[in-house]
Formats: sequence, C-alpha cells, structure tokens
Amino acid sequence: MRISYWISIVVCKFTLTSEVLAQESTFWKYTDARELTLVGKAHFGDHYFHRIDTAAFPAIPQTVKRLLTHSAGLALSFSTNSTRLSVKWCTSDRKAGNNMTAIAHEGLDLYIKRDGRWQYAGVARPATNECNEFTLVQNMASGDKECLLYLPLYDETISLHIGVTEGATLAARPDPFRNRILIYGSSIVHGASASRPGLAYPARLSRETGHHFINLGVSGNAKMEATVAEMITALPMDALILDCVPNSSPQQITERTANLVKTIRSKHPKMPIIAVQSIVRESGNFDRAIAERVAAQNANFDKEIRLLQHSDPHLYLITADGLLGDDNEGTTDGTHPNDLGFDRMLQKLKPALQTILRKYAIE
Amino acid sequence: MRISYWISIVVCKFTLTSEVLAQESTFWKYTDARELTLVGKAHFGDHYFHRIDTAAFPAIPQTVKRLLTHSAGLALSFSTNSTRLSVKWCTSDRKAGNNMTAIAHEGLDLYIKRDGRWQYAGVARPATNECNEFTLVQNMASGDKECLLYLPLYDETISLHIGVTEGATLAARPDPFRNRILIYGSSIVHGASASRPGLAYPARLSRETGHHFINLGVSGNAKMEATVAEMITALPMDALILDCVPNSSPQQITERTANLVKTIRSKHPKMPIIAVQSIVRESGNFDRAIAERVAAQNANFDKEIRLLQHSDPHLYLITADGLLGDDNEGTTDGTHPNDLGFDRMLQKLKPALQTILRKYAIE
Repeated sequence: MRISYWISIVVCKFTLTSEVLAQESTFWKYTDARELTLVGKAHFGDHYFHRIDTAAFPAIPQTVKRLLTHSAGLALSFSTNSTRLSVKWCTSDRKAGNNMTAIAHEGLDLYIKRDGRWQYAGVARPATNECNEFTLVQNMASGDKECLLYLPLYDETISLHIGVTEGATLAARPDPFRNRILIYGSSIVHGASASRPGLAYPARLSRETGHHFINLGVSGNAKMEATVAEMITALPMDALILDCVPNSSPQQITERTANLVKTIRSKHPKMPIIAVQSIVRESGNFDRAIAERVAAQNANFDKEIRLLQHSDPHLYLITADGLLGDDNEGTTDGTHPNDLGFDRMLQKLKPALQTILRKYAIE
Repeated sequence: MRISYWISIVVCKFTLTSEVLAQESTFWKYTDARELTLVGKAHFGDHYFHRIDTAAFPAIPQTVKRLLTHSAGLALSFSTNSTRLSVKWCTSDRKAGNNMTAIAHEGLDLYIKRDGRWQYAGVARPATNECNEFTLVQNMASGDKECLLYLPLYDETISLHIGVTEGATLAARPDPFRNRILIYGSSIVHGASASRPGLAYPARLSRETGHHFINLGVSGNAKMEATVAEMITALPMDALILDCVPNSSPQQITERTANLVKTIRSKHPKMPIIAVQSIVRESGNFDRAIAERVAAQNANFDKEIRLLQHSDPHLYLITADGLLGDDNEGTTDGTHPNDLGFDRMLQKLKPALQTILRKYAIE
C-alpha cells in the first residue's frame, strides 16, 4: 500500500496543477474510528462495530449472533478538511463468497455530501483477508467535507483508523439520518450481491430518503424464530420492514409469521410494520422446484399477512411484482440481486415506503 | 460438489411433483465442450478457448497476448433435452481481483432461449481457483432447450465438459448471432465489474440485438499500439467499436488514435468504425487529478476523431454523456461499471449502434 501510495504521489506531480499540489502533505495522521460517530447500529451496547450486542439477547440462535457481528449497514459520520483520506482496518479472516466482491465483503465505501446529495467518493480495496491499508481518495479540494464511510457488509470489523493529511481536521458529525426504520431480512437485506457496501439496498434507501434504514439482514438465517422476534421487539424503532421470506420454508412461514408480527405489535401498538414478499428467484426461471418453492413462500406469507391485516390497520404488504424488473438480468447468481436488481427494488420500494411512512408523520 | 448434488436430489423428493421427478436420472454423462459450437472468438486458430491465437500475431505486447487467453465473451452454443445441466471445468490458478466476483472471474453463466428471448438459467460457482464441478440448473421441463453458456471473463479456460442426465441429448447448435462487430477496449469491455460473465456489456448487446459483439477487451492494456492496430485489421469483422480511451494517456491518445483508425481503414475502406469516449470516472468525483485526466483523454480523443471524420464518412463518435446515468452509483470501484452502470451503457449504446449499423445493412 505504501509503495503504491508513493507512486501515486509521484504520478500526480506530473498531472496536477500547482494549486492542488500546494495543499498536499506527504504524511498521514490516523484517528481511531471509535472517536467518530458510528451510525446504523440496531442496538447500542459493547462491541463497537457489531450491529447488536448479542450478549443482551442470549436466547437467539448462534448463527444469528455471529451474523450480527458483521458490520453491514454501519457507517462512520465525520467531517474533515483533508485533501486525502486513508484507512487502516482489520476484519476477521473470513473470505468473500464466490458471488460477492472482496470490496463488498470486507472493504469500505466512502460518500461525501455535495449539493445536498451523498455522492460516491472512493472505496478501500482489501488486499488480504484481515488487515489492510488503502487510500480512499486524494487530490480533493480543500475545505470542510461531510463524509459517510460504510463498513464491510459481510465481515466483522475489528478495528478501523481514518487517516488525514498532517494538520488537517477530522471531527465527529451527528448521524445524518432521521428516524429509525429497521429492516429484518435475509442475505438480500444483508447486502448480497451489492458490489460495494454503500450499494446494499438499506444503505441506498437511507441516502435517497434521509431516513435511517437499519440493516438487520442475517444471511440465510432470517427464519422468524420466536427468540429473534423478542429481540427485534426490544430494539428502538419507528417502523419495521419484514423482508424475511426467502430463508423460511413455506411451512415455517405459515407457522411463524403471525407470532413475529404479534410479538412486535404487543410492544409497538401503532407502529407501521411493512411486510415485503420475496423477490422472484431467477434461478427458478427454469428450475421448477425453485419456482414452486418461492411461489409457495410468497403465497403463504401473503395469506398470513392478509389475515393479520383484518385486525391490524398498521400492517402493510408490498408484493413482489416488478421488484427485479422484467429482463431477468437483475441477479448475480439467480438468488441475490446485483446492483441493477437492487436499483430496481429501490425504484419500487422507495415510493411505496414513503407513502406509508408519511401517514405516520415519519418524514 | 457430489455431496451437495445428492443432497439437492433428496431435498427435491420432498418438494417436487411426481411429474417432474419422473424425468430425473441420477447419473451424469459428460461431453467435451470442444464437440459443441464455441461462439465469440475474434480469430480462429489453435488454442480452442483463447479469443485469438496470438501465435499468428507475434509482434503484439506480451501482456496483450496473455489477456487474449482469457475467455471473455466466449460462449458455447448447444441444445439438449436434459432436465439438468452440469459442468466440470478448469481455469488457470489466477484469483479474482477485489472488484470482481469469482463467478464473473472464473465461473460460467447459462442462458436458455424462451419465447424468442435469451433468459438467465443458472451460474457455475467456483469453489477453487482451478478445477471445479457445479450443477448449473436442474428440475427443468423436458423437451429441447437452446442453450448459451458463457465462459469465464477474466481467466483462461483450460478445459470444459458439459454434463447432462444419462440418455439425454446434447448437440452442437449454430452460432445464434449474425454479423461480426468487434469491440476493442479496456477492462470495461473485458467485463469488469459485471457480476457474472453474461452481464459484460458486449454479451448483453449480443443477446439484445442478435448481432455478434465480439469481446476484444484487454484489461488495462488497450493502448492502441501499432502492432495491435495491425492485428485488429487482420481480423474478420463487419464493424468495429473503439472503446479504448481509458487505458491510454492523453498524449498517447493524440499520438496513436489516427494511426489506429487509418490502419484499420486501409483494409476496410467502407466499414463503420464507431469510436466511444471513456465513461466518466466516478473516482474523479472528488479526486481532481483523475477528473482532469479523463477530461483530457476524452478531449484529445474527440479532437482526433473529429479531425479524421473530415475525410472519413464511415467514422462515428459516441460521446460519454449519460453513459453511466446521473446518480454516481454505477461503478464498483469508481472505475469499473457494476451491473447498473453496464445497464445504463446498454440503454445509450444499443440504439446509437443500431442506428449506425442499419445504414450499412447490418441488421
């Protein structure tokens, strides 16, 4: 990393204007991310980079506990006047699956606010499975910049330090998002297969609406267990989205949906709960067993939600129609949306969610 | 692979209708891919799975030779009445970069034609960097199916065998595409960062238009060298797209563009040559050096192409405007389009290319 960094500085000397070069210092000053503001946590406790301190919820399944150590949806909020930004970070030694990029799995993703809009600024690309160092962006204009740095989607973040040029400022900023809308779901919520952390659909929804969509995706394990229902119920939230159909069998959906909704409703009597059917599985385009299974999952979920709606005016259903578009090109592997699929989900979910949330003055 | 295969068969027994199960055999019969039809080759010689037999072009740079061994854009055309399809394949031991999935880098991607349209059917997910076995799809309806199986984008395919159920047919089919439109370009043409091989933009253009868009992407090395210009000139083609701005310095673009176009023109006097500016680099949203460099590359390319157009009525220019959309979410790493970025490129390039090609009765 150091070598490539010095090379990049040398290259810049030949291409940059003197006005830009005058602002460049050749030394980094690193700050522990724990001195900044971490947004996107579902629960506040020990374990800074975990979404939930699962020690507070001993009864939930071990696999769910492990998945909640992944930093999906967490982001650092800070400001700096540095013209360059760098990161040193460590994750667990877990390797990316074959349907994800290493950047999404264990890299970082920087956005900077410009003209009132969050705009892509750079990624940190991991060279190893554990500890890495990378320059996110350089040659920026001077002046204060409002930053949002997304953490790895599918790995545990163990440590993170932010580097700025020597003498530059680096300060915590408030959480830029308002309200707390939890999304409980499968690998699709968790972020597979976004190409980088900021493109997971809860993260895109947050940037596009200003609401805080909090990632409770637990890859392969969103099975609506009673203990998980109790955990979700205890979390602070203004609204809840249930995108948890893909991981449960049709029978589990019939058995568990009502308990999940009723458990949450018992503590949140007038809060909007928005159920979302499973996206179509493109792997079921020709595999009739997969197509049958997803159809049964969605039919059972639809039936349960509609039954509950008879006595629950704050329970909503968004169907699968059009969530992935109509050209069958929206997934990486037949199951997980690629960035095109996530964009199409966003185009349908964003207005549908906003319409519901506005009824509750969640604006 | 075998274990997961048997498990999947057992699972199916509990979920599938008897009508489907009646067609299932539990044994595979494998056929060497070389007995089928390989489409997408730029040049026919030895080395079945290479895009070009570079022994015929000894003068081109070594790195370009190596990159032309990657099977980007190659696909097998065949038909089968099997209800399941499997692959065994070997690639070089090269690992996926951090901005690509292993599926795109060294996996395979199956499409089947239905209602006159190519539709996603399944991917082969690599578990190791060299030799793998995977079931692409199962539980299909019986009857003949027209298949197109894309090979790895960023690795050399060394061997490939297609498995069908015992007793099922497997036969070569003709190339499903017409005309030969070469695309010479950078990593973006090569396929970074499509999430699977069939989503590289030349492959999408082929499926959507029926024309054969042949992938001559040479990642990081589309530098318009005189020797490469000679090589391209010798290839069979009906049209040529030049998407080769990103890898050349602004000075190289000024020095080399005219030679590239004139070399090709000398052998193809009335063939359409379509030059495409570089997509904007999202990594230049805040890095002013990158933004300056891309602006200079595109300005120099624009100038060269417009000068040449004075005496060349068959030379066209497509500008970068709108190629990646306007929300800055269309790349994986600030340089390489993700599937959303590629989709946006397709929405602009497809009608623009078709309008030009129609003038030459390339329909």
